[in-house]
Amino acid sequence: MNRRRLADLLEAVRSGELAVGDALDLLRDLPYAELGEAKVDNHRELRQGYPEVVFCQGKTKGQVREILGYMIAERTHNVLATRAEPELFATVSDLHPELRYNALGRTMVLQRERVAEKDGTLVIATAGTADLPVAEEAFETANLLGARVERINDVGVAGMHRLVPHLPVLRQARALIVVAGMEGALVSLVAGLVDSPVIAVPTSVGYGASFGGLAALLGMLNSCAGGVGVVNIDNGYGAACLAALIMRS
Amino acid sequence: MNRRRLADLLEAVRSGELAVGDALDLLRDLPYAELGEAKVDNHRELRQGYPEVVFCQGKTKGQVREILGYMIAERTHNVLATRAEPELFATVSDLHPELRYNALGRTMVLQRERVAEKDGTLVIATAGTADLPVAEEAFETANLLGARVERINDVGVAGMHRLVPHLPVLRQARALIVVAGMEGALVSLVAGLVDSPVIAVPTSVGYGASFGGLAALLGMLNSCAGGVGVVNIDNGYGAACLAALIMRS
Amino acid sequence: MNRRRLADLLEAVRSGELAVGDALDLLRDLPYAELGEAKVDNHRELRQGYPEVVFCQGKTKGQVREILGYMIAERTHNVLATRAEPELFATVSDLHPELRYNALGRTMVLQRERVAEKDGTLVIATAGTADLPVAEEAFETANLLGARVERINDVGVAGMHRLVPHLPVLRQARALIVVAGMEGALVSLVAGLVDSPVIAVPTSVGYGASFGGLAALLGMLNSCAGGVGVVNIDNGYGAACLAALIMRS
Amino acid sequence: MNRRRLADLLEAVRSGELAVGDALDLLRDLPYAELGEAKVDNHRELRQGYPEVVFCQGKTKGQVREILGYMIAERTHNVLATRAEPELFATVSDLHPELRYNALGRTMVLQRERVAEKDGTLVIATAGTADLPVAEEAFETANLLGARVERINDVGVAGMHRLVPHLPVLRQARALIVVAGMEGALVSLVAGLVDSPVIAVPTSVGYGASFGGLAALLGMLNSCAGGVGVVNIDNGYGAACLAALIMRS
Amino acid sequence: MNRRRLADLLEAVRSGELAVGDALDLLRDLPYAELGEAKVDNHRELRQGYPEVVFCQGKTKGQVREILGYMIAERTHNVLATRAEPELFATVSDLHPELRYNALGRTMVLQRERVAEKDGTLVIATAGTADLPVAEEAFETANLLGARVERINDVGVAGMHRLVPHLPVLRQARALIVVAGMEGALVSLVAGLVDSPVIAVPTSVGYGASFGGLAALLGMLNSCAGGVGVVNIDNGYGAACLAALIMRS
Amino acid sequence: MNRRRLADLLEAVRSGELAVGDALDLLRDLPYAELGEAKVDNHRELRQGYPEVVFCQGKTKGQVREILGYMIAERTHNVLATRAEPELFATVSDLHPELRYNALGRTMVLQRERVAEKDGTLVIATAGTADLPVAEEAFETANLLGARVERINDVGVAGMHRLVPHLPVLRQARALIVVAGMEGALVSLVAGLVDSPVIAVPTSVGYGASFGGLAALLGMLNSCAGGVGVVNIDNGYGAACLAALIMRS
Amino acid sequence: MNRRRLADLLEAVRSGELAVGDALDLLRDLPYAELGEAKVDNHRELRQGYPEVVFCQGKTKGQVREILGYMIAERTHNVLATRAEPELFATVSDLHPELRYNALGRTMVLQRERVAEKDGTLVIATAGTADLPVAEEAFETANLLGARVERINDVGVAGMHRLVPHLPVLRQARALIVVAGMEGALVSLVAGLVDSPVIAVPTSVGYGASFGGLAALLGMLNSCAGGVGVVNIDNGYGAACLAALIMRS
Amino acid sequence: MNRRRLADLLEAVRSGELAVGDALDLLRDLPYAELGEAKVDNHRELRQGYPEVVFCQGKTKGQVREILGYMIAERTHNVLATRAEPELFATVSDLHPELRYNALGRTMVLQRERVAEKDGTLVIATAGTADLPVAEEAFETANLLGARVERINDVGVAGMHRLVPHLPVLRQARALIVVAGMEGALVSLVAGLVDSPVIAVPTSVGYGASFGGLAALLGMLNSCAGGVGVVNIDNGYGAACLAALIMRS
Repeated sequence: MNRRRLADLLEAVRSGELAVGDALDLLRDLPYAELGEAKVDNHRELRQGYPEVVFCQGKTKGQVREILGYMIAERTHNVLATRAEPELFATVSDLHPELRYNALGRTMVLQRERVAEKDGTLVIATAGTADLPVAEEAFETANLLGARVERINDVGVAGMHRLVPHLPVLRQARALIVVAGMEGALVSLVAGLVDSPVIAVPTSVGYGASFGGLAALLGMLNSCAGGVGVVNIDNGYGAACLAALIMRS
Repeated sequence: MNRRRLADLLEAVRSGELAVGDALDLLRDLPYAELGEAKVDNHRELRQGYPEVVFCQGKTKGQVREILGYMIAERTHNVLATRAEPELFATVSDLHPELRYNALGRTMVLQRERVAEKDGTLVIATAGTADLPVAEEAFETANLLGARVERINDVGVAGMHRLVPHLPVLRQARALIVVAGMEGALVSLVAGLVDSPVIAVPTSVGYGASFGGLAALLGMLNSCAGGVGVVNIDNGYGAACLAALIMRS
Repeated sequence: MNRRRLADLLEAVRSGELAVGDALDLLRDLPYAELGEAKVDNHRELRQGYPEVVFCQGKTKGQVREILGYMIAERTHNVLATRAEPELFATVSDLHPELRYNALGRTMVLQRERVAEKDGTLVIATAGTADLPVAEEAFETANLLGARVERINDVGVAGMHRLVPHLPVLRQARALIVVAGMEGALVSLVAGLVDSPVIAVPTSVGYGASFGGLAALLGMLNSCAGGVGVVNIDNGYGAACLAALIMRS
Repeated sequence: MNRRRLADLLEAVRSGELAVGDALDLLRDLPYAELGEAKVDNHRELRQGYPEVVFCQGKTKGQVREILGYMIAERTHNVLATRAEPELFATVSDLHPELRYNALGRTMVLQRERVAEKDGTLVIATAGTADLPVAEEAFETANLLGARVERINDVGVAGMHRLVPHLPVLRQARALIVVAGMEGALVSLVAGLVDSPVIAVPTSVGYGASFGGLAALLGMLNSCAGGVGVVNIDNGYGAACLAALIMRS
Repeated sequence: MNRRRLADLLEAVRSGELAVGDALDLLRDLPYAELGEAKVDNHRELRQGYPEVVFCQGKTKGQVREILGYMIAERTHNVLATRAEPELFATVSDLHPELRYNALGRTMVLQRERVAEKDGTLVIATAGTADLPVAEEAFETANLLGARVERINDVGVAGMHRLVPHLPVLRQARALIVVAGMEGALVSLVAGLVDSPVIAVPTSVGYGASFGGLAALLGMLNSCAGGVGVVNIDNGYGAACLAALIMRS
Repeated sequence: MNRRRLADLLEAVRSGELAVGDALDLLRDLPYAELGEAKVDNHRELRQGYPEVVFCQGKTKGQVREILGYMIAERTHNVLATRAEPELFATVSDLHPELRYNALGRTMVLQRERVAEKDGTLVIATAGTADLPVAEEAFETANLLGARVERINDVGVAGMHRLVPHLPVLRQARALIVVAGMEGALVSLVAGLVDSPVIAVPTSVGYGASFGGLAALLGMLNSCAGGVGVVNIDNGYGAACLAALIMRS
Repeated sequence: MNRRRLADLLEAVRSGELAVGDALDLLRDLPYAELGEAKVDNHRELRQGYPEVVFCQGKTKGQVREILGYMIAERTHNVLATRAEPELFATVSDLHPELRYNALGRTMVLQRERVAEKDGTLVIATAGTADLPVAEEAFETANLLGARVERINDVGVAGMHRLVPHLPVLRQARALIVVAGMEGALVSLVAGLVDSPVIAVPTSVGYGASFGGLAALLGMLNSCAGGVGVVNIDNGYGAACLAALIMRS
Repeated sequence: MNRRRLADLLEAVRSGELAVGDALDLLRDLPYAELGEAKVDNHRELRQGYPEVVFCQGKTKGQVREILGYMIAERTHNVLATRAEPELFATVSDLHPELRYNALGRTMVLQRERVAEKDGTLVIATAGTADLPVAEEAFETANLLGARVERINDVGVAGMHRLVPHLPVLRQARALIVVAGMEGALVSLVAGLVDSPVIAVPTSVGYGASFGGLAALLGMLNSCAGGVGVVNIDNGYGAACLAALIMRS
């Protein structure tokens, strides 16, 4: 149920075609589909502007197949699943011929309708090649949500001159996602150069004292540059959702 | 130097009134004023859309007085100082008759020009009364940056019904700042109800195992609701800067 | 030895059928069975109202088989084993034809007597599908201890509307177990809506900064809602034991 | 608004004395009183079985005075404030002649009606004398909520024989609150001896490696004894609320 | 080189049989054998009363084989290797027919001379069956160092009555090693009952919030009972060395 | 009640002078004195070989005065109080003319009987001058428990040559207490040089990343030298108790 | 591009052979080669005195092969890759016949030109055999950067006498790299004996409470000896780069 | 005793003027002066190239006065004391008329001989004004050790353009000390621009999630730029010692 369909329903109420009580029942039933061990949230797109994602990690293959199967069969919307290992994709790829797998980003996408394109450009920058899986997850999500994305890879601080040629692209962005492990200093550097909001994604890339991404996380939270919002470690999906909300309208 | 003044200068270059080399020198000299133990960043407003703030914590009274004195005397822009204890304000209040002190937020503000108002409304919501100092810092900053702010206080999760009457205000916001200590669950709750970006500010309010705001920080980073960007513990200033960048245009 | 059997023994002492010294010897011998590398606690049911559990993690297959074998052969009570991987069950399933395995919850149960049913209902709610294994462990334990359980799955805060239809069930519960990973905010939400004790179980589900369940744990300990008691990360068993004690009488 | 008053209102609706719409308005208005910087939750007693507490830490004296003043002036219920330093009490003691201060527990109480007494006894046990402030906070709260409390002080594990004489009291309790710092082992010891729920309160008492109560907190969460629910460090108030919910009915 | 052999050498110096310079050379050469990537410490037995151990974890099979081979071939002393996985033992078992493997404790021992027996008894107590591997490592070490050991297994606090029958053994010990995971409360309990030194060994056994043994470690360090010295997590070897030094003479 | 007095009592039972029931009553009453908010443990000397200590931190002046007053008035044994600030001593110094205060170690001692001297010498070594308060607490405790103590101050690793002249004293010790902050490496150094047990006391002395003694604590727990038992941060008292138990007999 | 080649280019500018604009273009293009998912930094040798390293961990085999292939095909410089597992080497070993693999240090090296030798000697010392992989990584890096290296293995503090024979080598070093796990005390010991800079590398070697190298890291940061700089856990490469910079000139 | 004086002594031995035994006695006595509660290390200058510092924190005023008094009265060398609060200086300023106090850096210095100047320049750069106290401590130490220092203040990453004008100074430095709090990204930025060793000093400056400097510390340890050695939080003294060793010769 998206905003337009809801408007139709409400109009039917206004015109008397639909009784208030019936509308209430309809709306009460709509919010989610009960699938035994899971619920599928049909209202999220209406409420938050993006469809429900299937976070595959920690779910059994059977659970993912049931949820995806429902979403593919019963609905007409786009489908996104994250943290999907290759073996998982192998067990669900028969559900729809257009279900597409991104091996680096570990995402599964079924795009059935084109979301209205957001204004402006979203830049996704990574500090190093090892940060690419997180950036890919962000890219697939942002793409599905209608954002026009430009990618800048491997521009970590150790080679600042790598960043300089990309300044024009960085500066014209409506929003930026900066993905970095180790000390995460790329965030401070970029945020000091642009006047658009920067979404910082710490990654678990690094030597021992990165402590699974803690060093990058703390670094980004303490960034001396303003205009930075931080999301969870390795959470490319969350970064893209935030970017889409910033770029809406 | 703001964007308009820079445009004038560039126009002078284009028209031949100003030689390229002279313009270069001018721009090279402009970026900051050297005050011995500190530098004042004159370019930040141009570069990032908000003026430099004086973060008073850890600076001596003499250092703050010197920096504020320079900013007040030499420039025409707005001035903002954060983390200013009452005794500090007492030692600098004579610098300008309109320097205003917010005792709860511990901010000093001198507003000399009105920044162009941002589109939409910024909502600043707090979970409890003890979170107000951080919210005040955010409010003063956002106000100075041209954001129209609506405040919602003391709507923590323990009393969810407190939140319900504010839903219309929450939902029409262009951006939201949610300030909460303890477990910070208000962020998840609000972010699940709106389709605008939520800036989460953890505070150091709570019993022992809040560990100085760590519990709220981790809670917000792990929020199961999408569209959330987190800033540092008790960092109301940073939240407002991010909000201003999101609401620009 | 349960309370009734002990009463018989004491009555035999009172009536003179059994000498005090003999009774002492009997009781001294009873508390546990010595199995070489392990002891089986025969008194716990008498002392704490629930039978000893076999926590399989960290034990060799041989050790588990010896302990289960003793419990099945020598006693008439119910048997519960937790954290049992499928390969472990395969090596002990021949011990009793009615030994039942719950693959999701990784529990083994042999129910030989029906415990008196507790008053009221125990609600076990999970935030997401990935929290189900912990909830299953709690369910099997609570069931064996005589609690009537109602399950509510996948009602995490990101979709608060998912929770609303379950309010009647939540509010009539005698006790609730809330199982959640990530930021664990479901606990605050539920505890703010009911007037029964809430047992909070943090799970290790989440992105990087959940730090193995630490984020959910701290969130639950800092819940701004009252009436919450927290157990160890992923400890469904412990939550069910506490629930059974609350619901007794 | 407590349960009885709500029943009257609903009866008026049923009998037609009160229109549904008017009742809705009445209930919508009731939930809380808006006091500028704070809200007073009038519904909590109805919803959760205990009145709202004023957590004074982090609030200014003016804020506490305004909140307490409202609660005392406008309502007929009991009032409880925690974490109140002596100087704070000095500034509000004139609000009501019967406002009573507990210097050890740092609580302020105004008892205006006697809550119906709970079934059974609540035992509050402390490991050492330094844990008494937390136990006092729990005692005052539990007392106000209608629990009959027995106190056992200074029975830490280092002197297990101190505990033995209290076994009869421990074992007949309907619920127990165990307050301990250092390693918190008293919780495991007590929980292994009783068959009632144990609420564990870690305190910040101890040498350096107690890390502000972290050692006791982890110890209690990892207790090898079942039937334990843990609350926040030094949170005597939360423990008593949980106890009251357990003992209701 | 042990104390007796050194005395012979020094006597030879005193009597003139051995020149001072030659003795110096001999002693300079003796301390260790250089094996390329490792050194074997021949002096430790002389200096510290126990032979060097081979800590296998983190060494390649080739490195362990070279070190063990040297120790077996060149010397007449006892040999002890810890943290030896079964596959490692398989690759070195041919080095000596009497090299014995303890699969539970993961130790390899070659006992060629009987160390003088220590006075008194060493008690090694474990809280649970899962703590046995650490206790076995301690047992093998202590045995080799000449301590007479008594074992008490599976006497964790949850079943305090399990401990009571062992009080006579506990109380007559010259020293005690207590091995426990989870909250480690067995240490406090035992140390409160005996008047001999207690060596506490935290183990990594437990649910999530044991954080790899951190909970037990902090618990033991904060034990409210006196007379406790703590060693590293899972360090059965270190506990036995300390016990041997305590029991010497 | 010490061991000798208990033997007299038991002999009276054996000879018939004292009925068994009377003896039981006597022993039941003896363990501790009930002082309202505290208990004084009269049995600890009997049970553990050292008298109960009064840990003043976290107790009010009134509580300490009551406990000390009881111990001084009712008993003939030695009295030890630790963590006593000068102001506290000022409020209790009138209780007994021989109550002695150690300002550096913050201990109060009343020695009324001389404990039998332990065999051998206890060496207490500090790494730096700032570690002296902890060493003084250990010294006063050990002295009271009958240990002959030698002190070696300020021999930290940065000046290893400082340690060398003390080798003879270090090596003849029956037990050693090593007190060190910062990285605590003195423990590894000393333990590698002696063949007696080393009790390691981390202190909270150091620059920022000592994190209140955590660095020294972890360093000592991970010491590559054997024969080390660690106590809590800054816990000189606990170290001395352990030393006394090691040196008994 | 190294310093000599750059000088040629600049000389061509000075002499007029090369126009300034052309030189600018040339230099702008030079800094790095764009390889799709990665960038190869051609300027680092010029800028920092050492060539770019390929950090293989977290990169796919395909990514490493592409990067190495470019570096080998297009350039004449030396190549270094770290954290390369044996299977990775197997997939790239065909790229060049002289690509050499160090299985212990997990490095791949292709040395095509001999860097000018640094003044003085670099000593790399390890505390134990398990620290060798990190020392090997440092050795390969330092060797490639032109440092003359002397190795001292297995000289941990537990056997200080092991260190003494190496004092002459330690003291004549121009710089030292000390690699140690556990408590890392070897750093303090060595730094107290020499007057050259010591680069400390904590390793993740140790029992449980080493927490993945945290104990050694904190120990080294808190070293009471001066002249110590610490690098990341297990970061042999970083240590060697720092050493090379110190030894230059 | 410095290197020259020692050479004289050894020459006297060689020439026969001084007997070997007398020289041994002389050297044995020299290493340190015993001052009761402290030792003054007379050899450090000989051994490590810099005099012993008095770390005042944690020492009583009397202890500092005794140590300084000895150093001033008995010796002719330079004196340095760090972490000296103003009140402490007030109590020792009479010891020598030239004892100089740096209030910002909290150091006391008595310079009596000019150390030979080091080759090259040491650059000390700070990210913000609040980092100045640490930089001052480093400056005073480096100055006393003979380093020629250039200061660059307030060049944090948030204003990268602030750094650019200083590039020539940064690039000609023989060594650099970078002092930064918050996320410490200035270290990565500087280290990527220069080819000299960078000594990174994290400071405890920052908002809540800097956790007393932990964020900056981890950031610096994880710097993606090579050539960085990290010292303890706020340890300006240690940074300067390391710099002096790097710049010697």
